Order: sequence, then C-alpha cells, then structure tokens
Amino acid sequence: MNNFFRWLFFATSLSVVSPSFADEGMWTFDNPPMKKLEEHYGFKPSAEWIEHVQMASLRVGGASGSFVSSNGLILTNHHVARGQLQKVSTAKKDFIKDGFYAHTIAEEIKCPDLEVNDLISMVEVTDQIQKAIDKLPPNSTNDEKNKARKAEIAKIEKESTDKTGHRSDVVELYRGGEYWLYRYKKYTDIRLVMAPEHQAAFFGGDPDNFTYPRYNLDFAFLRAYENNKPVHPKHYLKWNTDNLKEGDLVFVTGHPGSTSRNLTLSQLQTKRDLSLPLGLQQLKTRRDALLKYSSKGEEETRRAKSFIFGVENSIKAMTGYYDGLNDNKLMSRLEIQEKDLQAKVSKNGELSKLTGTSWKNIEKSQELYRARAQDFFYRNLPSSSTLVSLAGLIYRYSTEVAKPNSDRLEEFRDSSLDSLKLFLFSPAPIYTDMEEVLFATDLHWALKNLGPDDSFVKKILDGKTPEALAHSLLSGTKLSDPTFRRKLIDGGKPSVDSANDPLIVWFSKFDSELRERRKWYDDKIQSVNALEGRKIAKARFALEGKNIYPDATGTLRFSYGKVAGYDQGTTHVPYKTTFMGYFERSESFDGKTPFEMPLKISKARNKFNLSTPLNFVTTNDIIGGNSGSPIIDRNGNLVGLVFDGNIQSLVGEFAFSGNEQGRTVGVHAKGIITSIQKIYNMPNLAKELLGH
Amino acid sequence: MNNFFRWLFFATSLSVVSPSFADEGMWTFDNPPMKKLEEHYGFKPSAEWIEHVQMASLRVGGASGSFVSSNGLILTNHHVARGQLQKVSTAKKDFIKDGFYAHTIAEEIKCPDLEVNDLISMVEVTDQIQKAIDKLPPNSTNDEKNKARKAEIAKIEKESTDKTGHRSDVVELYRGGEYWLYRYKKYTDIRLVMAPEHQAAFFGGDPDNFTYPRYNLDFAFLRAYENNKPVHPKHYLKWNTDNLKEGDLVFVTGHPGSTSRNLTLSQLQTKRDLSLPLGLQQLKTRRDALLKYSSKGEEETRRAKSFIFGVENSIKAMTGYYDGLNDNKLMSRLEIQEKDLQAKVSKNGELSKLTGTSWKNIEKSQELYRARAQDFFYRNLPSSSTLVSLAGLIYRYSTEVAKPNSDRLEEFRDSSLDSLKLFLFSPAPIYTDMEEVLFATDLHWALKNLGPDDSFVKKILDGKTPEALAHSLLSGTKLSDPTFRRKLIDGGKPSVDSANDPLIVWFSKFDSELRERRKWYDDKIQSVNALEGRKIAKARFALEGKNIYPDATGTLRFSYGKVAGYDQGTTHVPYKTTFMGYFERSESFDGKTPFEMPLKISKARNKFNLSTPLNFVTTNDIIGGNSGSPIIDRNGNLVGLVFDGNIQSLVGEFAFSGNEQGRTVGVHAKGIITSIQKIYNMPNLAKELLGH
Repeated sequence: MNNFFRWLFFATSLSVVSPSFADEGMWTFDNPPMKKLEEHYGFKPSAEWIEHVQMASLRVGGASGSFVSSNGLILTNHHVARGQLQKVSTAKKDFIKDGFYAHTIAEEIKCPDLEVNDLISMVEVTDQIQKAIDKLPPNSTNDEKNKARKAEIAKIEKESTDKTGHRSDVVELYRGGEYWLYRYKKYTDIRLVMAPEHQAAFFGGDPDNFTYPRYNLDFAFLRAYENNKPVHPKHYLKWNTDNLKEGDLVFVTGHPGSTSRNLTLSQLQTKRDLSLPLGLQQLKTRRDALLKYSSKGEEETRRAKSFIFGVENSIKAMTGYYDGLNDNKLMSRLEIQEKDLQAKVSKNGELSKLTGTSWKNIEKSQELYRARAQDFFYRNLPSSSTLVSLAGLIYRYSTEVAKPNSDRLEEFRDSSLDSLKLFLFSPAPIYTDMEEVLFATDLHWALKNLGPDDSFVKKILDGKTPEALAHSLLSGTKLSDPTFRRKLIDGGKPSVDSANDPLIVWFSKFDSELRERRKWYDDKIQSVNALEGRKIAKARFALEGKNIYPDATGTLRFSYGKVAGYDQGTTHVPYKTTFMGYFERSESFDGKTPFEMPLKISKARNKFNLSTPLNFVTTNDIIGGNSGSPIIDRNGNLVGLVFDGNIQSLVGEFAFSGNEQGRTVGVHAKGIITSIQKIYNMPNLAKELLGH
Repeated sequence: MNNFFRWLFFATSLSVVSPSFADEGMWTFDNPPMKKLEEHYGFKPSAEWIEHVQMASLRVGGASGSFVSSNGLILTNHHVARGQLQKVSTAKKDFIKDGFYAHTIAEEIKCPDLEVNDLISMVEVTDQIQKAIDKLPPNSTNDEKNKARKAEIAKIEKESTDKTGHRSDVVELYRGGEYWLYRYKKYTDIRLVMAPEHQAAFFGGDPDNFTYPRYNLDFAFLRAYENNKPVHPKHYLKWNTDNLKEGDLVFVTGHPGSTSRNLTLSQLQTKRDLSLPLGLQQLKTRRDALLKYSSKGEEETRRAKSFIFGVENSIKAMTGYYDGLNDNKLMSRLEIQEKDLQAKVSKNGELSKLTGTSWKNIEKSQELYRARAQDFFYRNLPSSSTLVSLAGLIYRYSTEVAKPNSDRLEEFRDSSLDSLKLFLFSPAPIYTDMEEVLFATDLHWALKNLGPDDSFVKKILDGKTPEALAHSLLSGTKLSDPTFRRKLIDGGKPSVDSANDPLIVWFSKFDSELRERRKWYDDKIQSVNALEGRKIAKARFALEGKNIYPDATGTLRFSYGKVAGYDQGTTHVPYKTTFMGYFERSESFDGKTPFEMPLKISKARNKFNLSTPLNFVTTNDIIGGNSGSPIIDRNGNLVGLVFDGNIQSLVGEFAFSGNEQGRTVGVHAKGIITSIQKIYNMPNLAKELLGH
C-alpha cells in the first residue's frame, strides 16, 4: 500500500526531473555555465565581468571574502574573523563581546595568523601529470603511479613558485579528471577594521544556527597590507544597496570546502539508516550529559562550553543531512540520476568494462558494513574523552613508529607526526571531572545498546559500573600532564610499558580487537568505496565532460541562483528579513538567552528605519567554506554576504537542494551599510565603501 | 533495519507514555479535572470560580464567546462575527473590509440572525432515558429502542422548556454513557459593537491560516440586548492585560464541535494511508484547476474566490490531520493506549464478552474497504460540480420519495427534505464555465488514476475527452435554472423522465452501480464501525468512568494548559508575538498579498509601543467550535482569546497533540486593549472593559 501511494505522491516530481538542475553547481572559473545562464536568466557575462569577480574574490583562511574598496578593504563574516578577534582580545578588551571598531587607519590591529589568497591565474596541467605517469614501466603498481603523480605535482608547484613568486597549488578536479595549476597572490599582513558585537553577529545562538528566517549581522571588515601600507587592488566590488528583489539573479563566488556528490545510493542509504541516526543519538547523549554537568556551577559551565557548542553544531549539521536524506523527493531524484548514469555507461563498451561491477561492489561492501554495525557503533572505546584518546595514541605510537614508515597506520606515518605531536603535547588544560562524565557517558552508550552480557561490554567494564570505571581509571592516570606524555613518547615502548599507566594498560587490552576491526573496515569497505568510486567518477567525466561541475575542493568557485523565499510546513517563508525582526524575535522570547537584544542595536532603535532589509535567501549552491562569500548582482556589484545555509541546504554535502527548500542565507548589503552608519557610527568606513 | 532504528528513536518517548496526558481533555463542567489540576499545577478552583467561568462563557452561533462587561459586552472572534458583518454591509459600507466601530450605544447594529446561549444548569437524565428503553418488550429491535430513546429525549426537553422557558437540550456524552439536560439562557438580540478591518483580523490569509507564529487581531465585540436594552449579566470576565508569562496555567472554556478520539488504529491507518493522501491529492488538483481558471480575468477570479478559499482551508486542515497521523510518536502513543484498553477489557468477563471481537471486526471492515479503494476514490462521478450534484439528487428524488419513508436513502427521508429543498431550489447563481472546469478536472482524476481502458472510465467518458464531455453535457442541461429544477421535483418521475435533460440522462446510467457501492459500504463498513465503536466506547466508559472526558459534542467544555512555545525543525518557536512581527512579516514579503499591512495599524505605527504582545500559544486542548473562547487565568480573569490552532494541533480531531507541537493560538488581552485604544481609537469601549 505504502509504495503505491508513495508513487502517487511523487509522480509529479519524477516527471519533471532532469539530471542537471537549474541553479545547481559550484563551477570553476575556467568553465562558467554560460549556456545555463543564458537559457535560464538571459545573462551573458563578459570576459571582463568574469575576470573582475574572480579577482575581487578571496580565500580568507579556510573560508571566503572579497575586496570591497580600492584601499584593500576585505569583507568577510564575523565568524570567519572570530578567531583573530579572540587572539587580539585581552582581559581588558573583549573584542568578541563588544565588537571592534577602528575609526582610523591607525587603530587597525594586525591579525596574528591570517592568510588571504587571491586567485590570479589558472593553467591546466592534466597532460603533464599524465605524461609523468605514462613514463613509468608498464607493470608499475598503483603506489608507484601515485608517487610519480605526487612528484610531478610537487615539481610543477615548485617551478611555478620559483618563477612567479606566487603561491602555486596544483588542484585535482573531477576526482582526477583534471589537474590545474592555481596561482595566488598571497597576503599575510591582514588587519582588523571592524566587527560588530558577538550578540549582533550570532543572535539566536545554536537554536537559530542553520535557521531561516534569520537576524544576524554576521560580517566583519579586514584590510590587506603590504609593506605596512594598505594595498590597492585593481579589482574590488562596488556596493549596490538598493533594489534587491525576489527573483533577481545573483552570484556567489567563494571557496566551498568539500562535497561528496558522487556517493552511490547504497552509500547514502547507509548514512541515512545507520550512521546518521546512530551518530545523532550518541551526540545527543553526550550533549545531555554535559548539560547536566554544566548545571553544577559556573566553572563547570565554562569548562564544558566550547565542547557543548561543538556538539550542538554537529547535531544541527547532521540533522540537516539526516532530514535531507529522508526527503523522498530528493532521494527519488538521486535514484533517477544514478539509473541514468548506469544506462549511459552500459551503452559504452569501454566505460561499461571500467564500471560494470562498481555499483554492485559498493553495494556489497555496504551490506557487509551494515551487518557489522554493532561493532562499529557500539563496540568501541569512549571517543569523546581526551584522556582515553591520548592513552590509545601513545600506546600505538610506541609500537607503530618502530615499524618501517610504509607499514604503519596512516596517522603514524612520518608525514603526520608533526601535527600528531601538536595534539599529544598540547598544554591545553584537561578537566578530569568533565572527562569522567564523557567517559562514563560513552560506556553507558555501549552498555545500553549491547546489554550487560555482551562480551565486549563485559571486557571494557571489568565488573564495574561506567561511573566507577571512569573514576578509577581517570583518577589513576597521569596523562593529564603533557610532560609525562612527552616522556612516554620520547622513551618509546620500554618507557610506556614500565610506566604502567592504568588508562594505557586498560586500552592495551582491546588494541588488537580494535585493530582487527579497523583493518577489516579498510580492506573490505573503505578501499572498495575509494576504488570503485573513482571509476564511477571517471566514467561520469568521460560522458559529461565539463557540462558538470567538479566536487568542491576548497578552490574558487562560481555559483548562480536567484533571490527566493520558499514554502515550509503549510506557509510561506519570506525572501528577506528586516531589523524589525531582530526586535520581534528578541521580544517574543522576552529577551531570554540566546535572544538578548544586542546592546548597540537596541540603542539605535530610533535612529533608523527598522524596515531596512537585514538578511535574505537565495538558491545558490554553497557549502561550508563559502562563509564570507560575496553575493553579486548582474552588474558585478555586491548585494550581500553569505554567512550560512538553512538546515535544508546542509544535504548539499550529498546533493543540491536549492530547487526545494535549501537556501543560502546572506546579510543584505543595505543592512551592512545601515548598521555601519547608524548602529556602529563609522561614517568613514561607510564612505570608503560607498565612495561618497 | 528500519524497525530497529525506529525502536531506538522512540524508546525514550515510549517509556514516559501514560494513557492520560497532562493538559489533555475537554472536560464537562460537572466534572472538572480537579485532581490533575492540583497535581500538575497546584490549583484548586473553588465552586464559585467554576460557576463564574461557566456562566461567563457563551455559545455564539456554532462557536464560542464570553461576557466581558457588566453591560452585556461579548468578546468573540472576527471570523465568528464575520457572517453578521457581511449581512449588514451594503454597497456603500463594507464592514468586512473597513471594520465596524460603534462609538456609542446608538451606533450599535443588530445582527440579523445570531443566537447566543449561556449554559445555566446541567442535570443528569441517564436513568430516566434508560428506564424508557427498559420498559419496552424484551425482544424490541434496535430501531424501536432508538425511537423510545428519542421520544424520551423529546419529552424531557419539552417539559423543561415548558417549565423554565429556557432552551433545553438533552445532550449525549461518552457516546451514550451519559445523558444530560442542559438549560441555556438564550439571547437573540445581539448587536455589533466593534470589529477590526479584515486585513488585521486575517493578516497572512490562507498561508498563515493554522500557522504560528501569527499576527492576527481576530477579535470582535458584540452586545446582548433584552427588551431593547443591554443586559447586565451577573458573571462576566474581567481583564488581566499584564504579566502573562511562559509556563502560566490557563483555561479555555468554550464549545468544541466534535472529535473522534475513539477511532481504532486500523481506522486511523486507513485515514493516514488512504483517505487523507488521496483526498489531499484530489483537492489539490481542483485548487490548481480553479487557480488556472481564475487567472483568466477579474470576473473568473470573483466567481472562483470562495470555492478556492474553501478548498484551501480543507487542504490545510487535512494536511494537519495527515501530518499528525504520520507522526510516529503520536501513533505509538495511540497504539499503547489501544493495547492498554484491550488488556483491561480482557481481564473483565463482561466487557470481554461485549467487545471481544470489536477491534478485529473493525480491522476486517477496514481491510475490505481498502481492497475496494479504487471504487471509492476513483470510480466516482464528479462531486465538485454543483450541476452534476443537482442532476444526481433530482434523479434520485424522483424515485426515492415514491417509496415508504423508512425504505428511502437517508437524505430523502421526510425529516431531511426541507434542508434538501433549500439546496435544490437555491437561487444562488451557477457559473457554467467554472462548472465545466470542475467537471472536467474530476473526470481527469478518474482517467489519470484508472487509465483509459477502465470500464467505468469508458462508460462515463462515452468516447469523449473530459473537456468535451463536460462541455456537451453542461451546455445542454437546463439545471442552472431553479424554476426548471422545481418543475422537475414537483412533477415527480414522469416529469424528470419526459424532460430528458442530458445531464440527468447521463447520471441515470451509473445510478445503479453507485447505489450498489453505497449499499455495500453502509452494510460492510459503516454499520460495523458504528456498532463496534459504540461497544468499545461503552467498555471504556465502564472502566474509566469519568476519569476520562467525553468526545466533543458542541457543548460547553473546560480545558486547562499552559502558555508555552515549542521546538520546531531545529529551532525554538516563541510563546508570543508582538506588533513588531506584523510589520516584520509584511515588510519581509514587500507587503504583497496576503501580507499587506492593515491600513489602520500602519497609521498607528508611532502611537504605541510595538513590543506590545499580540498573539500567543498555549497547550490547551481545543478543536473547531472553540473559536472565540476566552483564555482565563487562575483568578478567573481574561488573558486572551482563542482564534486558531496551529497546523500540528489539527490532529486533535483524533488525538491530543499539546504535549508535542500542537498549540492553541490566541489573541493577547493586552493586544486587544491596545488596539482598541491606539489603533481603533475607541476609548469608551476600553473604559467599559477595564472599568477605568
């Protein structure tokens, strides 16, 4: 019965499905979707237009930004600049809480460690790399081919840097379908110019994170310097603060981090039915345990705060994936796309040979994995406790580094040791009381789901309750002390063995079982997925070529879409919000946390028209890393600033959702200018931006 | 796999389930839930408190209201008074569009046909009715028992009216578990005092109907008169416009129309999997067809307007039912309740004998019905066309009324003929062009779902396209003319036969098939559901007595709950809204229909604090008919006015949802007073309400 009605319900949506959707795609600048733009929006960007927005777009740390004045002003998000604000704050000056306002050039403060990159050229180097691989003897192993590829990439990068002095990255696109040399002008003297108070930038906190309608001034201004003077970029975005209307064509340029739009249906089903629901459940038990811990007092609240923030953010993001993969409309579309690709492949002899069993092999590996789900989701050691992680890493380090490099577990290879040591020797405080709560919570998770008679549960609990075990092990271990950890690492296996640390001893009892499981996973699941996935990607690229866009890789991309509200539940969600909504949402919760009215906005209430637009939504295709991206109109002017996606957009990790409810959320250019002028009283900054 | 995870997900909710939930229930005034109130809220209403709110609560037409001044002022909803406003409007004065404002007693206008009832006493008469049935000979049929019951009810009502002069209704509660004589003071001289402009009362139109957050001034004031003078009720509600906070205990008194909380799981499943999704689909095709028709011009828009409004309202309501029944949490709770009742019944010999096969019999009837779903959902004649309905009714009338009364189809029994004739002879205009659209749309529905080769489809289409058939039949029929219809009815079968009207002739070809289907449904489905459902209700009442509340029956009820926001999606929904939100929602849609800012509110923008509370939500258990109910605090004062339930509350037809997201939506008392004072400038009215 159910299937019958499901069919009925989706009959309409199925009939309009096509493999490539309007507004979809994170396109590279060498291949903007000219045909789609002309077909859907009657827009033909000129070469100058494209060069202009490319050059004005920036990578800011791991996120995005843009030049917005001839004096090197950079617009990005408050949450992108947040780390730098934190680092320059002092006990006396909390720039996160109060905001940062440099009214003159002299007041601008240097960011301690922020790099900004401006992509200035792109050259395809696929052939060069292929040639380096082809030069190898015919019977070379995959490993040898990989080495040759990496060596050629390193060579190209070095030659380019030596020749041009620019940062030069060889970028892999289409999962190996193409390689490009990207050259960046690099800025390392970046200074803080302006950032609103935290409550204005993150009004609504976790509940409103990934939510729309939204009321956030999540913007910040930086300035690029060279030789101690502001730079004068040739290309910067001018502001259009008027006339943004529903339906308007807009562009987002920025650096989306990564997507996995190549996963097969069976992989997505595993995520939907297994990894995501169970992951969510476990995260929620951790959050609840830490909230309980926090309720004990102020110090506990402080200790747990950033952990809780991280967990809540993950819960939201995973909820977005989960809901997205449970949207039958979206899954039906992906099913059709997969079948379509399979049909095309089957008509092509060569591709058919290449991928003939790929989907089936992945499906089989997924079935294997699901059958062992209990092992991977329950028969695990507590992973949220830092001390338990340290115990495991130190125990394994002592045995792994003694092996030849190529035989080691991945995270103990020479190339990984530096960053691993950063963690192992970190002086960051470890709070044993909070660790106990996390440790016991994860033990309870296994106990609850496997029952007290499970052999693994029996082994890890050793006849104790979770609380008793966590307390005894954590009060006995000395791993909280970074000097002790360094001693163990430096002394190698003999030192670890003789220390007889109770937590490490406890861990050592399960090591071989955990290693067996991991090896099984790597051999039977991970390697199959990687190998077959690459074949499918190759087939797809062979068939579609550059009519499709590559998965996001942290490189500069170009997405198009329109300003558009959407329907949710049984009502409409508007395309924009206004400052009125700030007050409404705060008042409607009686100003309770996290809906306290930002102080400076409250004070300015009567100084400007509250109907001024604040945030808005568009159908552009974005993902994490696009934070700080400019939103640009047909004329190449800035109309807004990306700062979030709504919860429905998060499934963009796997598939574009902008044709349904998925939306990019931005701060309106008019909202930014108005707040600079009327709320933060920075007329010079406004003048620099507007040129008047 | 799926079931495993479903179990995981709902494990928590199952463990806290109990058959009777906090805040649930539409209690009768003879049996307020004193124990629950004391347990959950530490509140013990006195007998005076209960009498006071009972007497101040009113039935206003088919909805609710309350006395709110010593001079007979009545508070109800704008949408309850709307019919009367329409009837007193003229070409020159559109009181719906502009609102109605009587600044003095002299300006108040009499409502043409509105009756208000005030429940003044309740006496149980169960025994008396039972005795009348017991007096019958032992072998009396159900029909004879029914007659005796009805005769006794009529006798009790007549005696009471004769004795007291009051309206006297015998009320059936607990599906026959109890009978009560309710006496009402009846007011028929009701005058209009004040109603805001329509756009203020129904801001957001259909999209925001059944939606929250909400911004509606859906209130109106009437006044009860006797002997041409305002009445002076002893009990009226005083206003508390301050201090309503989240978590506060509140009461709703009013006249909920009807609920079906006694349906079995198998009946609900049929609704969820069959009736609701298919009903929704059909309604949507009709709406879409009429929207297309409307787009042709202004006159088409006018003709279709109220039909579209009705269809959209139904779509929303059914969406609420549908979503509610698809909420696994709620269905799990109902499943537990059903199993719990079955377990209790099985332990009781007598009840076990009574209902031993009831659930199974209903389930079997549901299976039978589902197996014939295509007949009932697709193999039907167009039901949205008025002309087709008239053709069918007239054809059957001519044969049915010739039979003895008891042999006729229900709607042709003598007792129904008056209201049937009201419809048959209605002079209301019938728009043949719109009828053709509806007719063809319904034919397409059958064609699309059954295919062109279905024998029924072949028969009804008669070789034509839906459009061609609709056009030929409707351009040929004379049934648009009420005089012609009267002639056919008056002339009986010979007249109908000789008229040879093409639409009636067409209908006559399917009459026997449709009758067969209906008879099958009545015999196999309807009668089984009614008989077994009554047995289950009887068992439940025997077990639980008055620890449970009876299904709603349009009589005065008492519900308790608290002011409370809720979580939706991944964020919080606030417990209240403010006037700021009116402006925000309007601006965020650029004031487009149906979000135009009401003129008088716009004008008053600077005259009062926009942070004044406007609407709010509570967990009280309500249903259609509660419109206009007062929301009352612990002190028996009025803090708000019920005007809607959110979409999640609609499943309340089948099960209470206030523990999840279901909420009663009310206008805040402070919002009403402020708008009277500052927006509508009626200081005298405010003074009368506040006493100062």
